[in-house]
Amino acid sequence: MTASKTIAELKLILDDEMGNLANGDNLEKVLTPGFVDKRLYAIYLIETYHYTYHNARNQALVATRPEKLDARYMKYCLKHAMEETGHELMAVHDLKKAGFLQKELKEFRDTDLPKPLMTTEVLIAYLYRVSTTGNPLARLGYSFWAERVYEYLAPLMEMFTHLGVEKSAMTFLTDHSTIDADHAEEVDRAINMFAKTEQDWEDIENCMRTSLRLKARVMDSVFEEFVKLKKGISNRYDFLNK
Amino acid sequence: MTASKTIAELKLILDDEMGNLANGDNLEKVLTPGFVDKRLYAIYLIETYHYTYHNARNQALVATRPEKLDARYMKYCLKHAMEETGHELMAVHDLKKAGFLQKELKEFRDTDLPKPLMTTEVLIAYLYRVSTTGNPLARLGYSFWAERVYEYLAPLMEMFTHLGVEKSAMTFLTDHSTIDADHAEEVDRAINMFAKTEQDWEDIENCMRTSLRLKARVMDSVFEEFVKLKKGISNRYDFLNK
Amino acid sequence: MTASKTIAELKLILDDEMGNLANGDNLEKVLTPGFVDKRLYAIYLIETYHYTYHNARNQALVATRPEKLDARYMKYCLKHAMEETGHELMAVHDLKKAGFLQKELKEFRDTDLPKPLMTTEVLIAYLYRVSTTGNPLARLGYSFWAERVYEYLAPLMEMFTHLGVEKSAMTFLTDHSTIDADHAEEVDRAINMFAKTEQDWEDIENCMRTSLRLKARVMDSVFEEFVKLKKGISNRYDFLNK
Amino acid sequence: MTASKTIAELKLILDDEMGNLANGDNLEKVLTPGFVDKRLYAIYLIETYHYTYHNARNQALVATRPEKLDARYMKYCLKHAMEETGHELMAVHDLKKAGFLQKELKEFRDTDLPKPLMTTEVLIAYLYRVSTTGNPLARLGYSFWAERVYEYLAPLMEMFTHLGVEKSAMTFLTDHSTIDADHAEEVDRAINMFAKTEQDWEDIENCMRTSLRLKARVMDSVFEEFVKLKKGISNRYDFLNK
Repeated sequence: MTASKTIAELKLILDDEMGNLANGDNLEKVLTPGFVDKRLYAIYLIETYHYTYHNARNQALVATRPEKLDARYMKYCLKHAMEETGHELMAVHDLKKAGFLQKELKEFRDTDLPKPLMTTEVLIAYLYRVSTTGNPLARLGYSFWAERVYEYLAPLMEMFTHLGVEKSAMTFLTDHSTIDADHAEEVDRAINMFAKTEQDWEDIENCMRTSLRLKARVMDSVFEEFVKLKKGISNRYDFLNK
Repeated sequence: MTASKTIAELKLILDDEMGNLANGDNLEKVLTPGFVDKRLYAIYLIETYHYTYHNARNQALVATRPEKLDARYMKYCLKHAMEETGHELMAVHDLKKAGFLQKELKEFRDTDLPKPLMTTEVLIAYLYRVSTTGNPLARLGYSFWAERVYEYLAPLMEMFTHLGVEKSAMTFLTDHSTIDADHAEEVDRAINMFAKTEQDWEDIENCMRTSLRLKARVMDSVFEEFVKLKKGISNRYDFLNK
Repeated sequence: MTASKTIAELKLILDDEMGNLANGDNLEKVLTPGFVDKRLYAIYLIETYHYTYHNARNQALVATRPEKLDARYMKYCLKHAMEETGHELMAVHDLKKAGFLQKELKEFRDTDLPKPLMTTEVLIAYLYRVSTTGNPLARLGYSFWAERVYEYLAPLMEMFTHLGVEKSAMTFLTDHSTIDADHAEEVDRAINMFAKTEQDWEDIENCMRTSLRLKARVMDSVFEEFVKLKKGISNRYDFLNK
Repeated sequence: MTASKTIAELKLILDDEMGNLANGDNLEKVLTPGFVDKRLYAIYLIETYHYTYHNARNQALVATRPEKLDARYMKYCLKHAMEETGHELMAVHDLKKAGFLQKELKEFRDTDLPKPLMTTEVLIAYLYRVSTTGNPLARLGYSFWAERVYEYLAPLMEMFTHLGVEKSAMTFLTDHSTIDADHAEEVDRAINMFAKTEQDWEDIENCMRTSLRLKARVMDSVFEEFVKLKKGISNRYDFLNK
């Protein structure tokens, strides 16, 4: 098995997983004209803020493993963590631009937002665990899809645009896609450079599948919370009803 | 209190601590002609290997704290960790160059060396704790002296030269002084930029004092182990008696 | 809101969650005569082994939180952890009794079993996170259902019996129900004693819901893996085909 | 080497270490009539509070190690942690009884006391590290001396009595000696039961020596802080000058 072939294989598995994720029922409602509105975007940004807050942290944790690590892999993890640092603030910026946060950014506190949804907590929990236990290479599987997810999310951005979200309130999504194009290549190179055994590839693949499925649950919850808000069954996001 | 004044003050406290550290009895023996030999350098390198192994790791841990951190400070910690990554291998290189390790570097395993001395374990333990609890800025106090210690160690290098250690077997000490000249300036800038309160400065100072004293104990132990080896009371370093 | 009322409420929420969990498709197949066999029990035991291995550990972690804790709650956590210690070995015992493990118990190693399934990893990850971050009382929500789940699982035991599993190979399930009857009462008392604020009750409830749903995913995966084994699409459990 | 012989040997090493610890200069001053007063006891209690706060926590951490552990050793650690839980409150009680704390015990907050001294931080750091890395049995070396230290401290209690400390303000020291007589036997039994290899005994011995030396430094600092307070060179403990 050559490594380059395997990156292509991972990509196929990713396509396959992505195909399976689309939740028919939710998707249909999302596409029904007039069903969703900008508040869906706000809920999406809030959860994005929450898990993104931890991305640099759990990425850096990989480099702090007690065991001997390839120095180049340690540096890769630290550099990548450095680049992810503070990205959660883009979600806060977008929330403000979209009119859902009245405060100045520098006065923003975590407590200004509802806590993470259960599904977001689970995603965060998994990323910490995969970063601190088991194969130190496994977390590359998360980066593998997270850095290239934006290609899959073009329809999402289009939908938010239709809901009236301005381009200037989509910095997390747009700027991120540019940044992440380079990142995706770096991740591919890193996988090719550091994954040496069958087990390495398997652990990376497992992390890819698991984190992606957990992210899909987050997206489902975001939609479900929107529906509850719309129907008035939950007051969790009442502050979004300006 | 202006920040720049305080860096100067920290420097004075450091000079003062350094002055107190010199252990009269040990120093006298070290300076007695013919008392010490190259094996002292080997023991020094072994302990240097052990604590340096953890420096990038505990530095990176600061950036993984759960609490909200200034993104610029997180990046500083990650960048600094990246620069310290793999430096323990310079100590291994020097051990080999000085004739105390027969293996190829790429085949080197931790288990080829005796475990850390108790005093080294204590230094390592403290650096992990200060990096993971209390004021996230405190660890800057360790960097403050560690990055500029080489100015104080010129006499040490001279002594090792007299013992017959070649320049090519002193990469950790020599290359490090060059690298660390820049680092020392960065640390000063970081302290000036991030330390805002009286408490911040105090915590940085405490970490500086504590880690420096623990490092001095390591140096004492290194010397004591050399004496035991010379007198034949301990077989811990017998492999150094080629 | 009186506390005793709330335990009753938690119980209602639990009943409700349990009702929602039953996966129609899977259940139907499980109940189809001749569809499942003892190998389903083996896969169930393997995953039970994996997450149970961590239960005493993550329970004890709650008592190691850096913040000040009620000494009685710390003791409760430690006592409960003590009682859960080693329970994973009952699953190993049952595997052996049911004829799926040839080794002597004392020679058993983790590596004798396939690694945890992804869904089991996620459950484990969540339990570690809830035990080490956020509200220290939250993990009581896991105990709340875990200690009384056996009342819901009577049909499961009956099914395994029909598949030919001997009573002596069901120590985890049977002995556990006896032990856990007492535990369930202790958990109720602990919740009533330590949960003081609305937020405490909410965090306990959230942990209950989340861990229960993650456990349900584990059960789904167990069934799916059985189906793959039966159809021969996966060789992960080939060693069960004696 | 028989195990029972080795407990006796450990005891001899402990006696030897204890003999070396007595710091001539400090001891002489302590014994000079009129040199010390009750404030020395207060400073001693404050540091005792600080490290004791962590004892149950770091003891419990041993049982949370990811690796497979003997279930009986896990239970030993958890039981012992349970017994140590809340003991720091005895130091708070004694501080109050001796007249150095005006608050009700239930209103006591960590922030009512000065932070730990540097040497206390180092002891705490070491105990966390030894509990979470390396040989899981090593921490028994700390318990080995900590549970029997009271026999060595009789002169200390006598001195505090001479300084006018009432028996009712010495619960930590007196009650602890009674409790710990049993503990010391349990520790001996545990070492005999779980330490199997030469390395186990060596790691236990190293932890005993290291933690004892670090505790001795704490005692030195306590005395040095008293001298600074007496001379008026430090205002850290001004609240003790009623």
